[in-house]
Amino acid sequence: MTTHEVLPIDSRVAYPNRAAIEHIQNVALPRLVARAWLHIPFYRRLWTQAGVNPDCVTGLDDLRRLPIIRKQDLEADLIAHPPFGSFQGDFPAVRLQASSGSSGKPKPVLHTRADWENITNLWARRLAAQGVTSADRVQVAFALALFIPGFTSMEGAMKLGALAIPAGSGAMTQSMRQLEIAREWGSTVLGATGGYALHLATEARERGFDLKRDFSFRVMYHTGEPLVEETRRQIENAWGVKSFNNYGSVETGAPAWECEYQHGMHFNEDAYLFEVVDPETLDPLPDGEEGAVVVTSLFKEAAPVIRYMIGDIASIWPEACACGHPFRRLSPIRGRIDDMLKIQGAAVYPTAIEATLRQFPEIGPEFRIVVDCKNGRDRLEVQIECAPDQNDTVNDLAVRVAQRIKERVGFSAAVTAVPFGGLATAEDVARRTKNRYVVDLRKTQP
Amino acid sequence: MTTHEVLPIDSRVAYPNRAAIEHIQNVALPRLVARAWLHIPFYRRLWTQAGVNPDCVTGLDDLRRLPIIRKQDLEADLIAHPPFGSFQGDFPAVRLQASSGSSGKPKPVLHTRADWENITNLWARRLAAQGVTSADRVQVAFALALFIPGFTSMEGAMKLGALAIPAGSGAMTQSMRQLEIAREWGSTVLGATGGYALHLATEARERGFDLKRDFSFRVMYHTGEPLVEETRRQIENAWGVKSFNNYGSVETGAPAWECEYQHGMHFNEDAYLFEVVDPETLDPLPDGEEGAVVVTSLFKEAAPVIRYMIGDIASIWPEACACGHPFRRLSPIRGRIDDMLKIQGAAVYPTAIEATLRQFPEIGPEFRIVVDCKNGRDRLEVQIECAPDQNDTVNDLAVRVAQRIKERVGFSAAVTAVPFGGLATAEDVARRTKNRYVVDLRKTQP
Repeated sequence: MTTHEVLPIDSRVAYPNRAAIEHIQNVALPRLVARAWLHIPFYRRLWTQAGVNPDCVTGLDDLRRLPIIRKQDLEADLIAHPPFGSFQGDFPAVRLQASSGSSGKPKPVLHTRADWENITNLWARRLAAQGVTSADRVQVAFALALFIPGFTSMEGAMKLGALAIPAGSGAMTQSMRQLEIAREWGSTVLGATGGYALHLATEARERGFDLKRDFSFRVMYHTGEPLVEETRRQIENAWGVKSFNNYGSVETGAPAWECEYQHGMHFNEDAYLFEVVDPETLDPLPDGEEGAVVVTSLFKEAAPVIRYMIGDIASIWPEACACGHPFRRLSPIRGRIDDMLKIQGAAVYPTAIEATLRQFPEIGPEFRIVVDCKNGRDRLEVQIECAPDQNDTVNDLAVRVAQRIKERVGFSAAVTAVPFGGLATAEDVARRTKNRYVVDLRKTQP
Repeated sequence: MTTHEVLPIDSRVAYPNRAAIEHIQNVALPRLVARAWLHIPFYRRLWTQAGVNPDCVTGLDDLRRLPIIRKQDLEADLIAHPPFGSFQGDFPAVRLQASSGSSGKPKPVLHTRADWENITNLWARRLAAQGVTSADRVQVAFALALFIPGFTSMEGAMKLGALAIPAGSGAMTQSMRQLEIAREWGSTVLGATGGYALHLATEARERGFDLKRDFSFRVMYHTGEPLVEETRRQIENAWGVKSFNNYGSVETGAPAWECEYQHGMHFNEDAYLFEVVDPETLDPLPDGEEGAVVVTSLFKEAAPVIRYMIGDIASIWPEACACGHPFRRLSPIRGRIDDMLKIQGAAVYPTAIEATLRQFPEIGPEFRIVVDCKNGRDRLEVQIECAPDQNDTVNDLAVRVAQRIKERVGFSAAVTAVPFGGLATAEDVARRTKNRYVVDLRKTQP
């Protein structure tokens, strides 16, 4: 192996202790930096400006010499160097996937054959940790197009010898059809966003199915949007499954996953470095303290991310996990920096509102957070779905929900109830992957 | 290699002469039959009833001792042995794809890891013959869900080192977005049904694009529906590309492909046996004579098809092709047996009507064939799209179209013109894969 080759990531490998993990990282980081310097103009430019070169990075301790990059840096690079930017390098890419992009335009991310093998190996590792075996039938209900996790998780399932069933999202296979596929072909595992897994539960109930008796699901895996604990519990209770969160993005690959203990997400320390920094000062924060997550992909050839502020708020948990795996854990994601709503100067995360709503079983899975500004004053409205024919109960419910939201986020919200189905159609839910719940009218108001 | 192992199919291999090809077939057929006898109850039952066992099949000459199977046999087996039938065997499958199924229910077809590797190798072979190289950017605009060719052709492109871009059909990525992807990311190859390739041309023109200047396409590959010659020419003229037909189905894999000469489809004789038989008597027909296509997949593990009447009408061309490839050719598909419309006792194929319409550049790509029955008499109506504001011209056009149809199919049709967009939306077109043009009202009439 030359110094510029990437590490092949094994789908099964485990490391005996921290020293073994750190040894891998100390080898991989200088190799990554040397490769990026040689092949990726974006980093060469950036590091030259910062006065860094590969000789400055001989091991893990030198990581902080490298500048932190943000989504906006990659977007600006795409505009300056169309069509694929200068951050992807000159590697022979065989696959393009894209993120939805904050500007509404998909951001292309290239993958070499080795990248594809490694990311799908990492998905095999995730799914194995979540109990998927060769005996499973894995229905993949993620959008199969530019959005990446449907493809990579499907390959991961195939690598475990499971039977992969590419249903695609509701835009390709409508929810009733998804339910028929699951029932008739005996799907035991569902891959879907948490929102879509809940939506399918509603659809199944409306059509008179008994979710536990009529279906064979035992595991559901999610990614693509933060999964709040209360949503997970609703999925688990509705379907009688274990439901697992997985953290990643098209830029990073498949970094972090929940084990059977469902308490924080182990990150693949043989393939990624994780840091948490202060989002304003960019100073490193100690383990356990909440801040902006920064990821370095040690194994990627095309478009590796090196100190990439992925945009999420979380903390690193250094404590050993009960499962015994030596990989450290990321806390549940508090929210995306981009999703944070500043309302009258206070920070509110949509996930906090979601978590509150999930405590009310009489509220449907869909909701909307509408923010606007009247007479210079920000207003927060939370729209929920519930049964239409009990007006008194609905009013009472709205009052109780508003009270709980105020307790949790410290801020008064108007709660409006609409009948079930009033907020979204199945196809809408299936298409959306991010920011599904927020409508911020202030952005469109003068 | 034991006698029961399958052949690995090389994506590049070519054979020097017929003797070499027949040697492969003589080895593979007895092996396939022995494997099916051992592992696949469906064939064991069928052959026992027919008084055949593996000892009866020592080489190619014994193929005709095996009974021919039809789509209905597989469908009945699925009902008798849910959920996957007894025709798939007891092999460890990692992937389920499905055909749309004549009954409206998708027919599941399982694939082992070796099947997936082989079918994607065959796609790499097809695309290489059609001029795709590692320098290409391949936009895959087939439906990515249970329909198989989007996935397998994308893997084939990746195996050639090309950059695969999974756009998915119009249901996932609407036509305007497809055009933006193609333009901004410089797609050079498009994979789509012929109908969708034409539809995209219409969309691009309506939005004021210059199809040849604004896009970088040079090759388009099609499958999933018969591609009539006149449709191919419209695609080629509109986009300034070479457009290639590929023949197959989820049950068979990727058997036949056009070479650069676009004259008949070579079938992969190291992986398939092709026969043409009389659709009524099932008697073999000599080369050159048109009849029902019967396919045997030599290499498939799960769900191999052995003497499977795929449902299409064509002939085998034994003559050497100008390209020099020793694989024989299948003629262009005349139509599907199922698509054949019996109108007043005469056989009419939708492809014949399509071919006629494509000769009129003033007619849009969408059309509908509506058949009904009034006073015991079958009636054929052909609905076309053309510009709305020239009534006299439209009437004159309809008369000329009706005349040409009568010349070609020997049958009078009423031709009705509606304005552009009157017959279908982009999403409709993208979702459909078969029988896109026919509405037979007789089936719903008492």
